[in-house]
Amino acid sequence: MVNIIHRIAVKAPLARVYAALSTVEGVASWWTRETSGESKPGGAVHVLFRSPDGSERGRMEFDVLELNPNRKVHWRFKSGPEEWIGTDVTFELSEDGDSTSILFAHKNWREAVEFMAHCSMKWATFLLSLKELGETGKGKPAPDDLKIDNWN
Amino acid sequence: MVNIIHRIAVKAPLARVYAALSTVEGVASWWTRETSGESKPGGAVHVLFRSPDGSERGRMEFDVLELNPNRKVHWRFKSGPEEWIGTDVTFELSEDGDSTSILFAHKNWREAVEFMAHCSMKWATFLLSLKELGETGKGKPAPDDLKIDNWN
Repeated sequence: MVNIIHRIAVKAPLARVYAALSTVEGVASWWTRETSGESKPGGAVHVLFRSPDGSERGRMEFDVLELNPNRKVHWRFKSGPEEWIGTDVTFELSEDGDSTSILFAHKNWREAVEFMAHCSMKWATFLLSLKELGETGKGKPAPDDLKIDNWN
Repeated sequence: MVNIIHRIAVKAPLARVYAALSTVEGVASWWTRETSGESKPGGAVHVLFRSPDGSERGRMEFDVLELNPNRKVHWRFKSGPEEWIGTDVTFELSEDGDSTSILFAHKNWREAVEFMAHCSMKWATFLLSLKELGETGKGKPAPDDLKIDNWN
């Protein structure tokens, strides 16, 4: 099993960053506008990605395994790209002065395929979107996300 | 051993992207302005990072193990942060229509420590700087690099 890990800090209070990760409205503000479902332990959230021209790029669904207020969010993917099924995404938060530090992981990929390298880069741009959301009030969720290569 | 991998594409000819990775002037245009040494197989390159206020943030030196024109660049770090010593960085290039696709890897970390998560995010921002350099002629090398957390 192989993992993607990133670390980023947002100059915003812990509670604001946690809300962006733990609610449907929050996730819709930095990852993809088309986020729906129930973000609570035992619930499932559906995310749909479109291109700026409106065409569908992909969709995934994850179970919310843990919502530990101001500390941790844990998702497990149950549908989407074949490589994502069964993988885990975690966000671990900590306060650091006037910033909130995020330790991100997308764990348990079966192999370090080129698509994982694409997703690592793409997660980095979405974490920058989350940082912008926390610091300016406006993120860049899909379909306004930064395109990094011919895959998206 | 654990690895960081990223994939990104630059809307620029293969030769231009290869030059940005294989020459001292190129690396100085997207990674850090203070790049010096000999970028040739058997040579060594020194990189020094400063904050915008001019204070030194860190320095590293790597051996150039391979320069395969328009295909691959391979570096091995011999000084710098303790965690980096002995690690390998590779850039594998391929042409994809009017773009150049880059498969980046920073391999052979001993452990997936939090500093590796920071470096993964930081590499992503430097690859975005390389993309900007190829597409607009101007990158964001240190000390103008994007600060992502309290570590840099």
